[in-house]
Amino acid sequence: MRRWNGWGEATTVVELPAQGAGFLAERLGVGRVLPDATLEEALARVPASRLAAHGLYSIEPHDRLLHARGQSLPDWLALREGAPGLYPDAVAFPDSAGQIRQLLALAQTQDLCLIPYGGGTSVAGHINPPDSVRPVVTVSLARMNRLLDLDEHSLLATFGPGASGPQVESQLRARGYTLGHFPQSWELSTLGGWVASRSSGQQSLRYGRIEQLFAGGTLETFAGPLEIATFPASAAGPDLREVVLGCEGRFGIISQVKVRISALPADERFYGVFLPDWSQALQAIRQLAQARVPLSMLRLSNALETETQLALAGHPQQIAWLEKYLALRGAGVGKCMLTFGVTGNRRQNALSLSQARQHLKAFGGVFTGTLLGKKWAQNRFRFPYLRENLWNAGYVVDTLETATDWSNVDNLLERIEQSLRAALAAQGEQVHVFTHLSHVYGEGSSIYTTYVFRPAADYPATLARWQALKHAASQTIVDNGGTISHQHGVGKDHAAYLLREKGALAIDTLQALSRHFDPAGRLNPGTLLQE
Amino acid sequence: MRRWNGWGEATTVVELPAQGAGFLAERLGVGRVLPDATLEEALARVPASRLAAHGLYSIEPHDRLLHARGQSLPDWLALREGAPGLYPDAVAFPDSAGQIRQLLALAQTQDLCLIPYGGGTSVAGHINPPDSVRPVVTVSLARMNRLLDLDEHSLLATFGPGASGPQVESQLRARGYTLGHFPQSWELSTLGGWVASRSSGQQSLRYGRIEQLFAGGTLETFAGPLEIATFPASAAGPDLREVVLGCEGRFGIISQVKVRISALPADERFYGVFLPDWSQALQAIRQLAQARVPLSMLRLSNALETETQLALAGHPQQIAWLEKYLALRGAGVGKCMLTFGVTGNRRQNALSLSQARQHLKAFGGVFTGTLLGKKWAQNRFRFPYLRENLWNAGYVVDTLETATDWSNVDNLLERIEQSLRAALAAQGEQVHVFTHLSHVYGEGSSIYTTYVFRPAADYPATLARWQALKHAASQTIVDNGGTISHQHGVGKDHAAYLLREKGALAIDTLQALSRHFDPAGRLNPGTLLQE
Repeated sequence: MRRWNGWGEATTVVELPAQGAGFLAERLGVGRVLPDATLEEALARVPASRLAAHGLYSIEPHDRLLHARGQSLPDWLALREGAPGLYPDAVAFPDSAGQIRQLLALAQTQDLCLIPYGGGTSVAGHINPPDSVRPVVTVSLARMNRLLDLDEHSLLATFGPGASGPQVESQLRARGYTLGHFPQSWELSTLGGWVASRSSGQQSLRYGRIEQLFAGGTLETFAGPLEIATFPASAAGPDLREVVLGCEGRFGIISQVKVRISALPADERFYGVFLPDWSQALQAIRQLAQARVPLSMLRLSNALETETQLALAGHPQQIAWLEKYLALRGAGVGKCMLTFGVTGNRRQNALSLSQARQHLKAFGGVFTGTLLGKKWAQNRFRFPYLRENLWNAGYVVDTLETATDWSNVDNLLERIEQSLRAALAAQGEQVHVFTHLSHVYGEGSSIYTTYVFRPAADYPATLARWQALKHAASQTIVDNGGTISHQHGVGKDHAAYLLREKGALAIDTLQALSRHFDPAGRLNPGTLLQE
Repeated sequence: MRRWNGWGEATTVVELPAQGAGFLAERLGVGRVLPDATLEEALARVPASRLAAHGLYSIEPHDRLLHARGQSLPDWLALREGAPGLYPDAVAFPDSAGQIRQLLALAQTQDLCLIPYGGGTSVAGHINPPDSVRPVVTVSLARMNRLLDLDEHSLLATFGPGASGPQVESQLRARGYTLGHFPQSWELSTLGGWVASRSSGQQSLRYGRIEQLFAGGTLETFAGPLEIATFPASAAGPDLREVVLGCEGRFGIISQVKVRISALPADERFYGVFLPDWSQALQAIRQLAQARVPLSMLRLSNALETETQLALAGHPQQIAWLEKYLALRGAGVGKCMLTFGVTGNRRQNALSLSQARQHLKAFGGVFTGTLLGKKWAQNRFRFPYLRENLWNAGYVVDTLETATDWSNVDNLLERIEQSLRAALAAQGEQVHVFTHLSHVYGEGSSIYTTYVFRPAADYPATLARWQALKHAASQTIVDNGGTISHQHGVGKDHAAYLLREKGALAIDTLQALSRHFDPAGRLNPGTLLQE
């Protein structure tokens, strides 16, 4: 059973080790636990729908509550308080493109807004209902989750847009294939959502971002279906795949997705390496990415993330031994943990590993074998569950991310961390902030920052703390050459910063596309583009 | 001195060997030589400009003649006849973004059309003036050809849009870098042109298409400059780089291009392999591409292209020995020549070579070492020069190309070749048609077909032959799941087929973007989108 007010399956629990709570208490003070609403209390607050019952959608309070929010920190707070405030008036569960078209037609005749909904895992407010005079119908694509066609010659698979990560992979693996797209939200997020919000997976170094995996498909719009044929590449004018990628439900509802798949790899391993300091580590991974060594993933934690991860790992005695060993080899205080993977055939993986080791050694890298890599692989989708037990221990955790060119990575990272550390200073509150780089490119890197702080005395004041933190970091990002999102999209939370990033003409261009496909502005208003 | 009515430098001559002419005469009959107009005759036909002299542009007949046509076969015929028919009224040579903006302003006050012009190498009619009541100014970007900035940390270079292939590479190589973008037109085509028409280079397997190399820059539009900031990747909504890529001058004039560059490789080699037949060869390269062996280029000629290349290579005695050797090893009649390259560091290249050899051997591949690969590398930009001496021998050569998914490659290739072979049957004329695949992807491949035929009795009748051939092949492509262009763009010659490929809503969407940036339709009308 999926948690109604948190991440993932209720049976999956990621414990916060005792020394982890101590580590945070030292830095932030003793945690503060806010009272959670029960599901019954939350259901009691769902107002009457503005819509009458209809065969195409449900107006049940339970459905409306469960589709009211995503997984951003404000969403978390709203659900924990049991007070999302705004709810869809109905939730539709179409099972075909035809039913999506019926919903589009109904939106026109009944003057509705529609919100396309995949796995509900947005951390940027994509699927939150707007405060609209029009009734709002959330369109869950959960029933359209099947593998519809497999072209084994062209390595192309056709799916319904609502297929979740496990649904995509299990249907492909049964035939010997993989999509290779593994965002941290993989257990719950969907193929259509990945496309609509330009997702990137943990092994994008090998498999590419969703932009490279999305080969074509269908977007149902008010101007009719936009059918995008598959070609390996084309010079026939601007690429309309790129209008679907990142449209965040503003231009239409995706009814079918064709993706480029791969044969399951023969061999895959992940390794742990420690670099003696951040400056060496940064140079090492930049040059490694630019040398095109065929790795499948790479993640570099800065010194404080490394320290925090080791503190929160449990097994303090083993960690102490590891740290002694590392210190003897030159990676002591200030060390940075690097995880990288090789995926493919054994000969290529052996060479890639050899080249990566040789390269990292020149920067003082201490190789620790596959143990930490295996840990990473085991826990790769578990981080979001930790919010639950941090919350229970009286702490709030959130993350944010950007990407920038290598010449700006260190500068931007430092400014983002500083902006977060300073954001609650007026309230005398500390913020624990740490960062990793993953998704490295020849040109630059993503920057993924985690911040932990204490709740305030009540929910509204806690939300205000988050708003101060989020705004400080977001403004810092766009003022300093970062993109407002590398992998999570714009949603409603980032929409205000898009103008600074892209400029007025670019925003006008996106508005023109929105008007072209949806002249009345019924599709996901307020997401991507501000009203 | 560049040829005014043909390809490249007048001093570069690619001879047609005697046995090559004989080979064609056997298949097509004796060639027919049409009389060429002199430059003086062509200049005498340039009508008076509709514009008065102006500091921003030239109205000299010589400039107007030299910018009237590109390098398509119809362009060739028009120039050889000395009768392009339509000429720009003026040619501007801006040296800054400011001057481009002045030209845009002038176009509004003086009611002009503007045609952005890079190297004039379009083979699809991109830069041919429309038959417009508005005076037409061609905007040559030739003076904006400099390396303006180099970010060695981020491997980003900023260029003026008019930098030709040699200008791009020489300025980068002096600093130890390469763009790695080598279309066959490389000697003359320009960075801005590559971006505007979604070009792909011969080593795109390693370096990517221009879509992957283009990181950002500026498009000057009637709605103001669209500045696209560089990020290694972004999820912040639809990617507006993709509005510039393939816009073919319809949305604006590119004034600056930022590209992703690479360190010069330590090692690069090209190899020749012969496969015993087409069916084996096709399977071999599909699986090689899908196995992700890191090759830098791959080109597979079908049996008739292989035969034609060997016949046109000269050195008949050496070729005879080669063919005897190949036949002994199992690659006799029907053999297909494969050229592939490895580029990078020596250890990786050695492994890639070993894996490619092992793979190809399983399909009966006969490895011939680097000699044919070296020949390919020496001659990689020389094929377009051959049109000159084929013309002088009484034959017309043209090429066309597409791309499709692997499950459709053989079907589409066969249909294209058949459509060309049959297109002049009513006139009793043979057409010599052969094909190669290059630009291979996991999903599919480009298909590049060359066809040779005899001129008719005069220029108009020869053009009519080409029109019959081109239309037959183009309709075959879009009716059978191919894109109308993999690497040359749409221009005016392919615009009529775009609706079939993309559908009405997609065309409407591109029209909406055109109206957004250029409401009065002054920019390159008729290119990309039909009037």
